[in-house]
Amino acid sequence: MKRLEQVVLAADLAGTVVFAIEGASAAMHADLDLLGVLVLSFVVALGGGVIRDLLIGAAPPSAVRDWRYPALAFVTGLLTFLFHTRVAAFSAPALTTLDAAGLGLFAVAGAEKALEFRIHPFIATLMGTITGCGGGVVRDMLLARVPMVLVADIYASAAFVGAVVVVVGRRLGWPPALAAVLGALACFALRMAAVTYGWQLPKIAA
Amino acid sequence: MKRLEQVVLAADLAGTVVFAIEGASAAMHADLDLLGVLVLSFVVALGGGVIRDLLIGAAPPSAVRDWRYPALAFVTGLLTFLFHTRVAAFSAPALTTLDAAGLGLFAVAGAEKALEFRIHPFIATLMGTITGCGGGVVRDMLLARVPMVLVADIYASAAFVGAVVVVVGRRLGWPPALAAVLGALACFALRMAAVTYGWQLPKIAA
Amino acid sequence: MKRLEQVVLAADLAGTVVFAIEGASAAMHADLDLLGVLVLSFVVALGGGVIRDLLIGAAPPSAVRDWRYPALAFVTGLLTFLFHTRVAAFSAPALTTLDAAGLGLFAVAGAEKALEFRIHPFIATLMGTITGCGGGVVRDMLLARVPMVLVADIYASAAFVGAVVVVVGRRLGWPPALAAVLGALACFALRMAAVTYGWQLPKIAA
Repeated sequence: MKRLEQVVLAADLAGTVVFAIEGASAAMHADLDLLGVLVLSFVVALGGGVIRDLLIGAAPPSAVRDWRYPALAFVTGLLTFLFHTRVAAFSAPALTTLDAAGLGLFAVAGAEKALEFRIHPFIATLMGTITGCGGGVVRDMLLARVPMVLVADIYASAAFVGAVVVVVGRRLGWPPALAAVLGALACFALRMAAVTYGWQLPKIAA
Repeated sequence: MKRLEQVVLAADLAGTVVFAIEGASAAMHADLDLLGVLVLSFVVALGGGVIRDLLIGAAPPSAVRDWRYPALAFVTGLLTFLFHTRVAAFSAPALTTLDAAGLGLFAVAGAEKALEFRIHPFIATLMGTITGCGGGVVRDMLLARVPMVLVADIYASAAFVGAVVVVVGRRLGWPPALAAVLGALACFALRMAAVTYGWQLPKIAA
Repeated sequence: MKRLEQVVLAADLAGTVVFAIEGASAAMHADLDLLGVLVLSFVVALGGGVIRDLLIGAAPPSAVRDWRYPALAFVTGLLTFLFHTRVAAFSAPALTTLDAAGLGLFAVAGAEKALEFRIHPFIATLMGTITGCGGGVVRDMLLARVPMVLVADIYASAAFVGAVVVVVGRRLGWPPALAAVLGALACFALRMAAVTYGWQLPKIAA
């Protein structure tokens, strides 16, 4: 395997772990049982990618094709359940930072995969956004609440910006690795700045 | 392009615009932010067609294959957000009429596409119904409420009737354009009559 | 048709009927109208299989490919609606027993179909679980409540155990019929024991 591919794989696995921890934590907060914890670990970590793959016609989705991803999500969810007191002790800023990193990675990977499947560049930016946010949306639907991402925060927008950087960079002929790194950084930076400064998208006062 | 195709395209685009306005309005009523408004514009306008395409095996769905449909939905959603006071001034009867027209169109287009993909005629009527109503169902799921269409009103049933007219007409050898027009009219008329006279489907008194 | 196939078909149809009755009953309890009753009959009876088929790349799903399944679900839902007082008189233990039988059957059929599509054995056990439980999850999402299966009870876990028995049995070279029967029995027995003795999965005290 080439060095770049190893980096991508490592980043992808890291993102899966972070998102699975978040899914498991959300499940425990919502008073779900062990099965619910495992399901939400899977859904948050892999749901966005599954939706993307169904939409771009990449069936079966990679989470179904490659058993290592669901296995990693389930093991992470189980460990989060078993050591929940230690996970709860993670500082909120640390989790936010990890989450922003995972978001950037997933957005970039999603946009890249869509381009690979010859999806139109504009749609590819949407697919990147869905890859980053889809898992959280399904989590909120399963918990019977309006998806957080639709209501507040610069979150999906950060994923969208990261995906746009990748797509535009590829159009401009940048090396793929450069486009990917800049896209992930753009998403990460925007998300962290939005959290730090409390940026919000506009809303109509109802 | 032939004249008929132009008419169909115009009608399809008109339906997308009407449903996107409705999605954006629902999002603003539910206090979503700008991103939520855009997502609901997309979901209401194109969600039914996406579900239909996934179910009949037409991957990627046309909303992913053809960037003009999502672009139209997003632009409509954005304009609805920017000019929300003017949109709010539309009279309710005007919106109901436009919505009934959009429903008829989507039901007919959905049934036709299913038949084209050699889906069994009975299933094709269901696919027409899903095309017309699926977007509204996903909207309600995202807003964490029971889909209106399952609870009250002659709405999905009107779409079903329109789809049945198309499927039966094609079986009887009617010209496709005639079957489409009569199907859309049947759906529209039934929906408008149901609204006007307050018709409801039966329900078990719980 | 061979004797075994006839048995499988009969069992599959029986499971569809049981789950459709449950979907219709849930819809009537939630005050849905006749259309809602029919939709929930379809969703509970066939939703798990549809999700499985989309995930393993078996498009169109068998519920769309073979009109007899949706027709059976709708007719069952309609009869449940018309004769709701009689259905309500079914004893709870009888319904629980039928449901456990349906669960075992669907879990086994789902795992088998995934193996047929050359899905990895570990993923095939998940596909069996989803086949058994997916319909109920979508039902709860449509009713805007947290899926019961994520919160309490040994239900999805029983489906998972049944699917594991099938997959392991096939790996060990058992005759397919034996693996299927033992898998369904394992699921059924575990579910009934869990109901009888009030077994629950562990949960973190929030």
